[in-house]
Amino acid sequence: MKILNSSDSKKNLKNVSIGDDVTIYDFVNLYDCEIGDNTKVGTFVEIQKNSKIGRFCKISSHSFICEGVSIGDNVFIGHGVMFINDLYPRASNVDGSLQADGDWILHKTHVERNASIGTNSTIMGGVIIGENSIVGAGAVVTKNVPRYSVVAGNPARIIGSIDE
Amino acid sequence: MKILNSSDSKKNLKNVSIGDDVTIYDFVNLYDCEIGDNTKVGTFVEIQKNSKIGRFCKISSHSFICEGVSIGDNVFIGHGVMFINDLYPRASNVDGSLQADGDWILHKTHVERNASIGTNSTIMGGVIIGENSIVGAGAVVTKNVPRYSVVAGNPARIIGSIDE
Amino acid sequence: MKILNSSDSKKNLKNVSIGDDVTIYDFVNLYDCEIGDNTKVGTFVEIQKNSKIGRFCKISSHSFICEGVSIGDNVFIGHGVMFINDLYPRASNVDGSLQADGDWILHKTHVERNASIGTNSTIMGGVIIGENSIVGAGAVVTKNVPRYSVVAGNPARIIGSIDE
Repeated sequence: MKILNSSDSKKNLKNVSIGDDVTIYDFVNLYDCEIGDNTKVGTFVEIQKNSKIGRFCKISSHSFICEGVSIGDNVFIGHGVMFINDLYPRASNVDGSLQADGDWILHKTHVERNASIGTNSTIMGGVIIGENSIVGAGAVVTKNVPRYSVVAGNPARIIGSIDE
Repeated sequence: MKILNSSDSKKNLKNVSIGDDVTIYDFVNLYDCEIGDNTKVGTFVEIQKNSKIGRFCKISSHSFICEGVSIGDNVFIGHGVMFINDLYPRASNVDGSLQADGDWILHKTHVERNASIGTNSTIMGGVIIGENSIVGAGAVVTKNVPRYSVVAGNPARIIGSIDE
Repeated sequence: MKILNSSDSKKNLKNVSIGDDVTIYDFVNLYDCEIGDNTKVGTFVEIQKNSKIGRFCKISSHSFICEGVSIGDNVFIGHGVMFINDLYPRASNVDGSLQADGDWILHKTHVERNASIGTNSTIMGGVIIGENSIVGAGAVVTKNVPRYSVVAGNPARIIGSIDE
């Protein structure tokens, strides 16, 4: 892995560990994260610190990968997919000051290998998206997605399965 | 308040009134709006004219704050949150010309203090999001959200409440 | 029509055929597509190859128009609208290599004239959005939308109609 730090006019990259043959499109904001070999990161993507993306993944445009998300190899993330790591987000503390690290609880999320997460879906913090599963477009995932299952809807429910 | 006008390579700021200690990330498009003290505005955010954001707010990445939206103090706006101000949007008028200001009715929206609006939710025009309420991730809000309530779903319904 | 190729610090335009009086805002990524007279394309929009947008359309901020989408005249596309062209997206092939053109089936989508597609909605591949119809905000469209109808929800269902 090598470390990218660049702030050209179209890419903000700060302490990004990348493998070989990674493609990063323009208008992105990536920092303190890790991206595996052969993965593609689309336009208008933000990837936060302490997140990790595997090899041979596609992270499509307009998506947001937050702190605490780990993504296995060969995972497809659609367009406009948003991860969450704070179940009860508040702008400020009881004393009115703006919340900072340590003022809230981080809920980690893991996407297992070969899963596909459909466009415009929302992934609540603290869940596991199982190997080879499919999250339908526009789904709001609030609990674990079993491996080889297909989920859809708001909230997401199992609507089918993939042959193993 | 001071007025920001800047068009550097990563930020479009036109006639933005900002308070003290405001943080504005890169790749944003803000114009003719007001942002209160200590508020943070994330990457890939657009804030339109005649909108107002309070103090100690967080406006997360990929969000869209449209004309006619006013946001109180200490409000959390998640990632990919989109406001709406035109209930029956059309690209063009009956004569085929492109719609401009005055060709449609602006429905104003107000978010009261300390509310939190979850990631990827959609807020119809003309509603009030009550003080301290929580809008769940992925919700489509079509009517008022009572203060201290929790709503979720498409369309959003009350699913709980917050202790006062 | 003329061809735009530009890579200034705020716009990526590659082989974009545009008509007269087209407005293209900053922070966009458009390539190998066609945009008709008088159409406006908002901030943070990506438009892919082999897509076509008519005249007098509004493509609002944060939207994604993918390959295989054709949009008629006088169409309104809200903010954060995402089209889909691959019904079973996977990052990689069975052999583990990253999918490329030819490894998946393109499902084309057509939006007929004068339709309006609401903010944050998701449009599955292979559908026809009928003339003058309205897709409600946050809808997930999984099948054809009849002309002059109103649909909403996840999945989208008919909830009303427009007078012809």
